[in-house]
Amino acid sequence: MQPDPTVAEQAALTSGNDFWHTTPAAGLPSITVTDGPHGVRLQASEDDVVTGRPATCFPPAVATASTWDPDLLRRMGEALGDECRAMGVAVLLGPGINLKRTPLGGRNFEYFSEDPLLTGVLATEWVRGLQSRGVGASLKHFAVNSQETDRMRISADVDERTLREMYLRAFQRVVTQAQPWTVMCSYNRINGVYASQNRWLLTEVLREEWGFAGVVVSDWGAVADRVAAVAAGLDLTMPGPDDTGDRALAEAVADGRLDPAALRAAADRVRALVERTAEREPAEFDADTHHALAREIAARAVVLLKNEGGLLPLSEGQSLAVIGEFARTPRYQGGGSSHITPTRLDDALTALSESAEVRFASGYDDIDEAVALAAESEVALVFVGSEHETEGADRESVDLPPAHRELVERVAAANPRTVVVLSNGAVVLTRPWEAAVPAVVEGWLLGQAGGSALADVLFGRTNPSGRLAETIPVRLADHPSYLDFPGENGHVRYGEGLHVGYRGFDAREQEVAYPFGFGLSYTTFEYGAAEATVTDSGIEIRVPVTNTGRRDGREVVQVYVSVPGSAVRRVPRELKAFANVPIAAGETAEVVLRIAREDLAYWDTRVNRWIVEGGEYHCAVGSSSRHLHTTAVAEVAGDEVRVPLTGESTVAQWFADPRGAELLGQAFAAAAGGGPIGRLAADPSTMSFVGSLPLSRMSAFPGSPLTADTLAKLIAEVNG
Amino acid sequence: MQPDPTVAEQAALTSGNDFWHTTPAAGLPSITVTDGPHGVRLQASEDDVVTGRPATCFPPAVATASTWDPDLLRRMGEALGDECRAMGVAVLLGPGINLKRTPLGGRNFEYFSEDPLLTGVLATEWVRGLQSRGVGASLKHFAVNSQETDRMRISADVDERTLREMYLRAFQRVVTQAQPWTVMCSYNRINGVYASQNRWLLTEVLREEWGFAGVVVSDWGAVADRVAAVAAGLDLTMPGPDDTGDRALAEAVADGRLDPAALRAAADRVRALVERTAEREPAEFDADTHHALAREIAARAVVLLKNEGGLLPLSEGQSLAVIGEFARTPRYQGGGSSHITPTRLDDALTALSESAEVRFASGYDDIDEAVALAAESEVALVFVGSEHETEGADRESVDLPPAHRELVERVAAANPRTVVVLSNGAVVLTRPWEAAVPAVVEGWLLGQAGGSALADVLFGRTNPSGRLAETIPVRLADHPSYLDFPGENGHVRYGEGLHVGYRGFDAREQEVAYPFGFGLSYTTFEYGAAEATVTDSGIEIRVPVTNTGRRDGREVVQVYVSVPGSAVRRVPRELKAFANVPIAAGETAEVVLRIAREDLAYWDTRVNRWIVEGGEYHCAVGSSSRHLHTTAVAEVAGDEVRVPLTGESTVAQWFADPRGAELLGQAFAAAAGGGPIGRLAADPSTMSFVGSLPLSRMSAFPGSPLTADTLAKLIAEVNG
Repeated sequence: MQPDPTVAEQAALTSGNDFWHTTPAAGLPSITVTDGPHGVRLQASEDDVVTGRPATCFPPAVATASTWDPDLLRRMGEALGDECRAMGVAVLLGPGINLKRTPLGGRNFEYFSEDPLLTGVLATEWVRGLQSRGVGASLKHFAVNSQETDRMRISADVDERTLREMYLRAFQRVVTQAQPWTVMCSYNRINGVYASQNRWLLTEVLREEWGFAGVVVSDWGAVADRVAAVAAGLDLTMPGPDDTGDRALAEAVADGRLDPAALRAAADRVRALVERTAEREPAEFDADTHHALAREIAARAVVLLKNEGGLLPLSEGQSLAVIGEFARTPRYQGGGSSHITPTRLDDALTALSESAEVRFASGYDDIDEAVALAAESEVALVFVGSEHETEGADRESVDLPPAHRELVERVAAANPRTVVVLSNGAVVLTRPWEAAVPAVVEGWLLGQAGGSALADVLFGRTNPSGRLAETIPVRLADHPSYLDFPGENGHVRYGEGLHVGYRGFDAREQEVAYPFGFGLSYTTFEYGAAEATVTDSGIEIRVPVTNTGRRDGREVVQVYVSVPGSAVRRVPRELKAFANVPIAAGETAEVVLRIAREDLAYWDTRVNRWIVEGGEYHCAVGSSSRHLHTTAVAEVAGDEVRVPLTGESTVAQWFADPRGAELLGQAFAAAAGGGPIGRLAADPSTMSFVGSLPLSRMSAFPGSPLTADTLAKLIAEVNG
Repeated sequence: MQPDPTVAEQAALTSGNDFWHTTPAAGLPSITVTDGPHGVRLQASEDDVVTGRPATCFPPAVATASTWDPDLLRRMGEALGDECRAMGVAVLLGPGINLKRTPLGGRNFEYFSEDPLLTGVLATEWVRGLQSRGVGASLKHFAVNSQETDRMRISADVDERTLREMYLRAFQRVVTQAQPWTVMCSYNRINGVYASQNRWLLTEVLREEWGFAGVVVSDWGAVADRVAAVAAGLDLTMPGPDDTGDRALAEAVADGRLDPAALRAAADRVRALVERTAEREPAEFDADTHHALAREIAARAVVLLKNEGGLLPLSEGQSLAVIGEFARTPRYQGGGSSHITPTRLDDALTALSESAEVRFASGYDDIDEAVALAAESEVALVFVGSEHETEGADRESVDLPPAHRELVERVAAANPRTVVVLSNGAVVLTRPWEAAVPAVVEGWLLGQAGGSALADVLFGRTNPSGRLAETIPVRLADHPSYLDFPGENGHVRYGEGLHVGYRGFDAREQEVAYPFGFGLSYTTFEYGAAEATVTDSGIEIRVPVTNTGRRDGREVVQVYVSVPGSAVRRVPRELKAFANVPIAAGETAEVVLRIAREDLAYWDTRVNRWIVEGGEYHCAVGSSSRHLHTTAVAEVAGDEVRVPLTGESTVAQWFADPRGAELLGQAFAAAAGGGPIGRLAADPSTMSFVGSLPLSRMSAFPGSPLTADTLAKLIAEVNG
């Protein structure tokens, strides 16, 4: 057993030894942490912190989220764990689960969704898969890091209900359900306080409320003040070494500015992390197997947006014009810390050529050639998309590049059997060009096997079942975040509050191009009547779903909950459960979906806790947030919540409380006729004025039935 | 000369003696303050605080604002001053100048506009007119009191730029240009602090920045804590007496919790107010003259929204079906503290009967009768509108009542020559019913002479020149405030920020039913080319406007300014000047509009002051915010503003500063090749990462070219 570490050793343990290693100190070895999350980016050479050793480049989160399949995420996590073990990596820095607040977010390609439930469910399985291999996850970026503009400093100004229900909710789910070994704090500030120095966030919420037991690691360079960070609950500052900071910690302990227990706790948590990874055996992985998994996930991530006249799937042997450089030179991941050096790379052009007679034109720079080719072919496939997404910079537009739009329109004019295949890390607008084409395939960024996965979908070897994890709006200006992005002078106001993504579009009853949850299949499904049962743990919904077409397929059955007549603001619909179900042609599946009672709760700012409101919960079941086929109503018993009455409570609030009404009625009666305010209170036409008065303010009015003494007595009695 | 007042006397002076009088103390008499602002509501009997003595009921602010005519507001202020003098009133509680943040605002009928410039210019003249008669105004409700829901407690949560540029800006204009004798603090909280106890608001902003020299009076019952209020800068708590509060003040002075100078200053300001009203002679007013003025203002307030085929004006002698109870029983003011007992009351039915053959049906309850009448008449006039607006409650809908909508549609079906005349205190939607009628007249609430004023407009004796002071949206859900109203649990987030009213509709490029500034005339106007000249005091714009029709008329020429390429967020267009110009038929007026330089400024949160940004100011001139006919560009020199560089300034900010770039370049060169971060900084492809780093954070990276010592030296040198 080692002796207790000195303060200097503790300080050293709480910062890195270089870019990617913890500091060996107090008898502990160094461990390797490295970037993810859709691959292992292990620095290949000492001089180059950017380029990684070859590793499987799985699809980024924009694609994996579109699978809506927790099982796939778990298998991907397991595979990543195996690669980490093979490369000696103890902690893989991911998953990134920040909400997609705006389609302009530069890192949207590596985040999951605009919905916290979908994000949380999928990320939980990824973490479980990874950690089942003895490799730690690093849930990031905690928290409210939904933009790149001024990301090192910007304060996300968000009210607490929105924080809890939207921006923290996926983190809460993953922490409580999968216990990631580490959580990575974000660069930005939250309501003015750096995440790295935010005691409320790192200690009160994360550890005390959620029970997080692992290490909080800083994003690289996120710590402005080591002493403040350790005091707030940050354990490991990366990168390092940070001799200045280590000394500052020791001095702060010495002169009493920092509780020695805080530093000790941070060092102990780093020690525990190092120790839990120490006994692992190295492992190997099979690159071909992982490539096949990457291909399976990628094919399942493709979202079929439009398919008029059953143009898709293609038939083998058709003559195809494959147009657009992206078919030959795929866009398959974004830029920044998650950039992977793939073990190999499939392109769609080669993959398609295996099943059809294919001719190719690169397109964007020579549209005439592409048009001529399209005119001579049975079907034209046009590969277009966004040119770039990267960490460090938000996007400037959600339109296709002008040359891509022109290409689509001119090819479609030359051949009405045109399929558009999109490659993009975040939403691109589909109007107006999509009106000219019968089929649109949303191919996101699909990782190293994306090319063959697209061929699988286009030829129907995989029946598409991907669903949108983010709304495609008609115009950027329609987006709920539009007026409040990207902020200025260090602050961005999250003015849309709870109305993130589809919640906002639905609240304003706005038209969208394609709604959240949407995606077509090569087969069709029909829904029977849903039934809801309230159980001890929540609501169970059963619905029969029939595959009414001639192909086997998968349906993503989605449950959206509304609470009509709620006492607090509610968005029209919230995703509360989903199931990804394979259903053979002609078969009916009895789909069972469960909503945990805690997922029904809202954050009640009166009492600062989660509250399930009693009442009717309308559970609409369908195939997208705007394709709802059947609704079941569950009558849920509410949590008890009593807000004490005070002098600041209004007269109306007193009268709404049985005991308050009784006591106040007596007080008023005793002072009856006591002056103008008494008469106002007795007159229904002026009750709107009197009702809104805080009770203590009544005594300001001449002839008030309440004196300060009466008031004190009332308050004591009503809460007694 | 009186001896110095005792602390007890000072305390007594700072609260009322009853509902409507100050406390006689320290040798000072009591003065009368009473509700306005569109009439004098002097309590008629001791037992009834609601009903006032007869006084001229001028049009409420919803109507006066639609005149866009400062001169009319001044004349109305003068007339009100004369009535106050006749009734012994020292201070009239008005004008109410809160922004119309939402069409659901319950007091919108007594506020001016969704635009702070229009509000401020009009209210300034009203205050000047009133105070020219030796009667004090009470500018209210200071501040951010834009809703009635939970108005006694709700915290308006607003960022400071929005506060300054939108919600405080009209107050700033009126205070600095007209020095109202009093300002009334509002009930609500602002960013968590009660207005009545908000030292930042009442002392730092109002007195220290704006130079307000008068009395701050509380809204009736707005003070929760007398001691905190006096410390914050509140002078007079109303109503009274408040013996408990008076004693609390004396005790707080005695035990040192309250600076005696604060109480003394409050008492001195009340004394000065009482003394400045003491020498006034009583006066008389002529009710007929004031009624005529009320009629003139009302006619000028009417907004002609639609007039297809020149259906209006009516011809004398036409047979008219006058339909709708509002024609006989006018809605002419709203409910609450501003409710006036009029000296007389004109109804439209009687007024129209003087010029035409009129038959009447009350309509709403017997639509069949109305339809039959319409079918038999040359023209049908349908009077519909909102049924109620009042202080104390926000509106629940912006639709016409269902019976009114049905009435319009069925009458229009019976007679294509149907004119809809609206009576409403705040916006009502015009779709879809307006498609069925050729003419729509927005008649607001027009005060006691509204009935004859409507007849003046309908028969063309007054050529309509009213303009919308608030946007009429297509749907309520389109409104910028929609997602953030009315808040819950004590807070309402002003999430749309600067994008209030037309600023929000324009920013999102949304369709509206009728844009801000819109209104038709019975004649037509053409605009020549505008020219802009930059002067020492701002921008002067000249534009020739020609009356191209056959009637004399008035045009409201409006200037909207855009600042393309601004370094801060700007709304697409802001009203910065307007002129209300009579132009005879066939004549051309050379209209001169002046924008004061300070009105070009934005609130810069980096330096906490108003800054005029240098650059091109595009001045679009037109007849509404969306009918812009000519644009002149002014090149304005900017204010100098230098934000000191610090360790929190980013690498990009350092490089953007000439001196910073030089120093940092030297430091980097000295450390060239010093490690990975140096190479990252030298590589343009990674500069987006490095550029966003706060300079002090660079040292966290291995091989950083900056040490803590270098950094301190750089900061000292760059700002030296």
